Amino acid sequence: MKICIINGPNLNLTGIREPGFYGDKSFETFIPELRAEFPGTEIEYFQSNVEGEIINKLQEAGFGADGIILNAGGYTHTSVAIGDAVKAVHAPVVEVHMSNVFAREEFRQRSYISAGAAGVIAGFGLASYRLALLSLLGR
Amino acid sequence: MKICIINGPNLNLTGIREPGFYGDKSFETFIPELRAEFPGTEIEYFQSNVEGEIINKLQEAGFGADGIILNAGGYTHTSVAIGDAVKAVHAPVVEVHMSNVFAREEFRQRSYISAGAAGVIAGFGLASYRLALLSLLGR
Amino acid sequence: MKICIINGPNLNLTGIREPGFYGDKSFETFIPELRAEFPGTEIEYFQSNVEGEIINKLQEAGFGADGIILNAGGYTHTSVAIGDAVKAVHAPVVEVHMSNVFAREEFRQRSYISAGAAGVIAGFGLASYRLALLSLLGR
Amino acid sequence: MKICIINGPNLNLTGIREPGFYGDKSFETFIPELRAEFPGTEIEYFQSNVEGEIINKLQEAGFGADGIILNAGGYTHTSVAIGDAVKAVHAPVVEVHMSNVFAREEFRQRSYISAGAAGVIAGFGLASYRLALLSLLGR
Amino acid sequence: MKICIINGPNLNLTGIREPGFYGDKSFETFIPELRAEFPGTEIEYFQSNVEGEIINKLQEAGFGADGIILNAGGYTHTSVAIGDAVKAVHAPVVEVHMSNVFAREEFRQRSYISAGAAGVIAGFGLASYRLALLSLLGR
Amino acid sequence: MKICIINGPNLNLTGIREPGFYGDKSFETFIPELRAEFPGTEIEYFQSNVEGEIINKLQEAGFGADGIILNAGGYTHTSVAIGDAVKAVHAPVVEVHMSNVFAREEFRQRSYISAGAAGVIAGFGLASYRLALLSLLGR
Amino acid sequence: MKICIINGPNLNLTGIREPGFYGDKSFETFIPELRAEFPGTEIEYFQSNVEGEIINKLQEAGFGADGIILNAGGYTHTSVAIGDAVKAVHAPVVEVHMSNVFAREEFRQRSYISAGAAGVIAGFGLASYRLALLSLLGR
Amino acid sequence: MKICIINGPNLNLTGIREPGFYGDKSFETFIPELRAEFPGTEIEYFQSNVEGEIINKLQEAGFGADGIILNAGGYTHTSVAIGDAVKAVHAPVVEVHMSNVFAREEFRQRSYISAGAAGVIAGFGLASYRLALLSLLGR
Amino acid sequence: MKICIINGPNLNLTGIREPGFYGDKSFETFIPELRAEFPGTEIEYFQSNVEGEIINKLQEAGFGADGIILNAGGYTHTSVAIGDAVKAVHAPVVEVHMSNVFAREEFRQRSYISAGAAGVIAGFGLASYRLALLSLLGR
Amino acid sequence: MKICIINGPNLNLTGIREPGFYGDKSFETFIPELRAEFPGTEIEYFQSNVEGEIINKLQEAGFGADGIILNAGGYTHTSVAIGDAVKAVHAPVVEVHMSNVFAREEFRQRSYISAGAAGVIAGFGLASYRLALLSLLGR
Amino acid sequence: MKICIINGPNLNLTGIREPGFYGDKSFETFIPELRAEFPGTEIEYFQSNVEGEIINKLQEAGFGADGIILNAGGYTHTSVAIGDAVKAVHAPVVEVHMSNVFAREEFRQRSYISAGAAGVIAGFGLASYRLALLSLLGR
Amino acid sequence: MKICIINGPNLNLTGIREPGFYGDKSFETFIPELRAEFPGTEIEYFQSNVEGEIINKLQEAGFGADGIILNAGGYTHTSVAIGDAVKAVHAPVVEVHMSNVFAREEFRQRSYISAGAAGVIAGFGLASYRLALLSLLGR
Repeated sequence: MKICIINGPNLNLTGIREPGFYGDKSFETFIPELRAEFPGTEIEYFQSNVEGEIINKLQEAGFGADGIILNAGGYTHTSVAIGDAVKAVHAPVVEVHMSNVFAREEFRQRSYISAGAAGVIAGFGLASYRLALLSLLGR
Repeated sequence: MKICIINGPNLNLTGIREPGFYGDKSFETFIPELRAEFPGTEIEYFQSNVEGEIINKLQEAGFGADGIILNAGGYTHTSVAIGDAVKAVHAPVVEVHMSNVFAREEFRQRSYISAGAAGVIAGFGLASYRLALLSLLGR
Repeated sequence: MKICIINGPNLNLTGIREPGFYGDKSFETFIPELRAEFPGTEIEYFQSNVEGEIINKLQEAGFGADGIILNAGGYTHTSVAIGDAVKAVHAPVVEVHMSNVFAREEFRQRSYISAGAAGVIAGFGLASYRLALLSLLGR
Repeated sequence: MKICIINGPNLNLTGIREPGFYGDKSFETFIPELRAEFPGTEIEYFQSNVEGEIINKLQEAGFGADGIILNAGGYTHTSVAIGDAVKAVHAPVVEVHMSNVFAREEFRQRSYISAGAAGVIAGFGLASYRLALLSLLGR
Repeated sequence: MKICIINGPNLNLTGIREPGFYGDKSFETFIPELRAEFPGTEIEYFQSNVEGEIINKLQEAGFGADGIILNAGGYTHTSVAIGDAVKAVHAPVVEVHMSNVFAREEFRQRSYISAGAAGVIAGFGLASYRLALLSLLGR
Repeated sequence: MKICIINGPNLNLTGIREPGFYGDKSFETFIPELRAEFPGTEIEYFQSNVEGEIINKLQEAGFGADGIILNAGGYTHTSVAIGDAVKAVHAPVVEVHMSNVFAREEFRQRSYISAGAAGVIAGFGLASYRLALLSLLGR
Repeated sequence: MKICIINGPNLNLTGIREPGFYGDKSFETFIPELRAEFPGTEIEYFQSNVEGEIINKLQEAGFGADGIILNAGGYTHTSVAIGDAVKAVHAPVVEVHMSNVFAREEFRQRSYISAGAAGVIAGFGLASYRLALLSLLGR
Repeated sequence: MKICIINGPNLNLTGIREPGFYGDKSFETFIPELRAEFPGTEIEYFQSNVEGEIINKLQEAGFGADGIILNAGGYTHTSVAIGDAVKAVHAPVVEVHMSNVFAREEFRQRSYISAGAAGVIAGFGLASYRLALLSLLGR
Repeated sequence: MKICIINGPNLNLTGIREPGFYGDKSFETFIPELRAEFPGTEIEYFQSNVEGEIINKLQEAGFGADGIILNAGGYTHTSVAIGDAVKAVHAPVVEVHMSNVFAREEFRQRSYISAGAAGVIAGFGLASYRLALLSLLGR
Repeated sequence: MKICIINGPNLNLTGIREPGFYGDKSFETFIPELRAEFPGTEIEYFQSNVEGEIINKLQEAGFGADGIILNAGGYTHTSVAIGDAVKAVHAPVVEVHMSNVFAREEFRQRSYISAGAAGVIAGFGLASYRLALLSLLGR
Repeated sequence: MKICIINGPNLNLTGIREPGFYGDKSFETFIPELRAEFPGTEIEYFQSNVEGEIINKLQEAGFGADGIILNAGGYTHTSVAIGDAVKAVHAPVVEVHMSNVFAREEFRQRSYISAGAAGVIAGFGLASYRLALLSLLGR
Repeated sequence: MKICIINGPNLNLTGIREPGFYGDKSFETFIPELRAEFPGTEIEYFQSNVEGEIINKLQEAGFGADGIILNAGGYTHTSVAIGDAVKAVHAPVVEVHMSNVFAREEFRQRSYISAGAAGVIAGFGLASYRLALLSLLGR
């Protein structure tokens, strides 16, 4: 089974940026741990700060992988274009957030991605990704 | 470890109500399966259509259990009082929804519970509860 | 044929509360008159101030009666949960109001119940119930 | 007793327009049936697509008839002028709709007519008119 | 003179819940002190987390007591039904809040109760109740 | 000098409709008085309940008369089309209202006509027309 | 093939009204040119300032012509009734505007007609009609 | 008869400020002209940029003069306090504006004064004051 | 102990203005009564219709008195500047209103003062001031 | 004559994505057909999912080509930056959409591009591009 | 060159009020430093808590000085009248704020002054004034 | 000291685009002048039309430079992602705009960047950059 994790803007700073809030573990450390934990699953990892490159990757993985885990970061709340891509592709997309976005600023409580997502998981830090993976493997 | 699952209004109809949308398995069937799957965890199950009884249970479990899984159903979107109870208790509360509420009517996209919840899981049907349980056990 | 009339909060005060506005006849007087007028119809009457008990009754009558006449009082304008119950049950539900709610405060002009109701009748005092009964009987 | 039924825009298409939604009986068929059913009542029928002609008729009937049944169609949601006429005349006006307008688009949930209407009946197809007639006869 | 104090959801946690914010004295301690301070006044105390039971009590005390002190907690901001009950009863109702709700979240700044209340007192902790009692006693 | 007075819907009921509010003098009485008072001015009077006929008249008078006094009644608040006509014509248009519309319902406080009008006069009953005439004569 | 062009309020002033903005050619000149350009197409032309007459024409052409080109002028932004007629008829309706309405006042950016239209063309002056005709002929 | 004209902020700049828009005549010139035109009327003139001094003057004139002409300038749109004063006093208050405020920025279309004013006159430059005076003399 | 009472615009009319609503006792009568009732407390009284003078007094008393009772009248709902002053000073400020502002116009339900006030008391007429004084003495 | 067609995000999926809605012809097929149809016109084609690359292309073509046909896809509704570029360049820009965006979700009814566009064409599938080309050739 | 600095309400408390937020230097200390730093510039300093006195000063300096630096404090967000004065005067006005008002409460993010200001500088504490002075000297 | 200037979309057109509004000097001319004026400061200059590349640069400079001057152009008003980057980095960020954005379209008055910026400078053309540089050097 092949799963693609797509991370959006500023998530490359995880581990450095506000460690008291986001934790001090980076994705460079976390992804290998996740691969070790799920040896039978092929896990691709992609990060970009560019909205359009996230769409490019969604289109590619959306017709090639068995599932997508998408944390679109700040684009979650503003990007109709990423939301359209999520709806256009075949692979199921699980929307994840490390923080509980629903408990933050009001503009973070609107997601253009949710309407096309299979489900939403928010608030569990890096464990949000593990839960999303479990949900896709259990489909 | 002791976990309390609290279900709100109309969730007692699961399995009967719109089975094409919510599935045809009832909680009477699902909860024993969940207990069998997690033998080392004490899982209490409570359902009520009455807002205040949900608050009563949240107050009781919130000072006695190690975690709460709350699906407040229609009260999610209207109950300041349940939201206050979630904030007042000690046990962590994970908010769950069977459907992806964020892809439904606009009034279902506001939750008074999220602000006090540890995290939110929505859209995976009954599996939302299993993921919530895993998140609490992994804390 | 079996019809269930469900009255919500404060309707037990009808006849006492603002008689100039709501009339001076109570439901204790009105329901027997209605039964006498429709001898071939079984008319159940239920009133509660508790939102969840109204849901309980809707669930019970919604799978047992041939039609429901629902005046949810103040819950009409705030209860997603009652609205969900109306949509979940099998029996047709006619929403009634004694006063013309559409001519009152703005917050009374939104109904969470209408979306699932077969129809709406408002403004005819106790006669609203008689018209609703006629509509269910098929005249 | 003299009752005037006033129908607004596009209601002349009833029976032709979306018969699955509005039914396949036209007013040309329905009105004679209604007159036959209520032989002691003089029932006038008027339809126009022109907002101002509806006002003209409301002014005429509003000082001549004993009651008015008004389905203003699309003007219901936009016409302050018809609403003013409803308030200005002496005869009681019952607002009717064939469909349950409160379960449709948001802009159909505001009525400028309700504020002056004696009552509102919506969602019962052509039977909405019969119920309105009954309510006026029972006044 | 007979005064009824009605407390809504989560106020039974006062003294336990966020003592730095709400103080560490419970109503079990406070009410006897209040009775001792006002020996000539009969003070009834009622608390419930259930919206409908608060309405039941308001209806009962509203036709029996000389005044009501109501802290509806989270229902203050969402309950049209309690607001209707406040308007329906004969006894004057003083709305109280321990915290200054007007300095908190925006959704706490709307009260469905105020429109029917004799007055509002907020922000003085348990002393809000004493001031409300004084206002009813006519000092 | 030639002035055209254009009255919109329901203004033909002036003198009959709510005389306590609008006065008991009709335009049939008032216009001759006005003509007598301003013998050197040609005063045309036109009333219609039909929005489009008001536009027709505005177009005719707007290229023929020296000034227009327009009370569009209920169309004031809803008619982009009349507002467009006011802007399109050459003659100056003074918007008048008998009642102080700015002190009435909120939807009466928006005018689509004002943006194109030379000025606005409201609240002086029939005298609003006299003041408008004076303003046009004094231009 | 038979196409009906329906123009709404104030469009009869085209050529006279703000020629710098709308051009100085009238429909009296333009329509014959269009007929000459498309000799094999029967082009009917209708203009009215009356909302209801536009509905009358839409109903007539909507069951007789092969396509309708509708510029509802100011009614575009306010008429639920015309929008309902567009949805009710069989012929495809292309919504046109001479100016780019989306670049003008905010209230001109809402169209009640678009929801039922086959397509929308705006901003090309009289050429908007030619493009609409081409789109209908190419269907 | 005694009339008091009260002008608010920046109106002391009339004649200097944007003469193309407001004209080049100052109130120092206009008021004597007005007094000459109405020799039998005592016309008091007051201007202040201070909100509270306008209230002071309204209170004084409101119990002493026979009528008040008030142009509250920018305070029109923001001052609940001046609006309260207008309602509190005995003399009728006519609200005037030199420009047609209803055709300007949206925030200028809300007036806190209108609700208490006898009438409103806007858009006629200095002539607005003359019309207001005529309306008061004609009462 | 030294307490300063600060009254805002139009409160100098109390006793004269709408006595049926506000009572017929003026502050000139009330303040001496209050001083007599609390002989051990120094009570300063200040009233102004000028927003800035209220700020001046708040700044002076806010660093000199032991408590402030503030009824900012109409400025309550519009003055960010007074709200800033309330937050800036050291003495606790109790916001009072004679009427129950929360049951009046919607624009009176927003207070810029509450966010910085120790508490709020509204609806008890002049007794609101006595309750505020008691609350400050009991701190 | 040189025309540049610029397509935004997800339009590279046309033909694959929801063929029932968008048709099954891709731009790889359509563009050569269009070039064949208009042999005297140089038609450049550009597609990108990246917002900034669309701006780059708009700047380049906007000072080099004779006209631009822009379908900005999901960026239409969110990109102030593309809208600024449209306004900044010299070549006229025609905004096109394959679907009738005005009949879809509310957030698709706002366009940041329209304000700077020469015109708008929506709802004709790939034919929208042909109509846009005709409009530019006919300028 | 002559520059006038105008400070609004509560800015006289700078140095005393929340020194951790606004710093502990008062304007009594800062202004002489600024004058020493710019010896060739005449710097007038004015502070008032009264909205109208700020307008008076703006009118005076606006026709006498070469530039104005205006920090209107809390009036920034509520005063149409000050905004009108800024637009009316000849001297350029630079709007300054010590704190970054755009990062504070939402009601502080609207400025009635900006529309008439030459520029805006916010967030640099007392240095905001120095930057404003530099910008005026560099004009 | 090292300062990085980051310019967003369309700012590469400065000097060409609307020179009457933005001036006719390009950044290619201006930046060398600025470097000459501040010889002791290392000034890096970066411009991109791509939102994500601006984030890349912010992340790089945000942990390497001593200060950042950011003009995000059209992204200012729509980009949560850039706003998040501004908050995430260590170097202070000064938000600049050449035009006074607060005096332009309403959608330009909301900035997602301000909340994380040290300060804001707008309206001084290219001099906005010089003032920003001065503010950073003076920190």
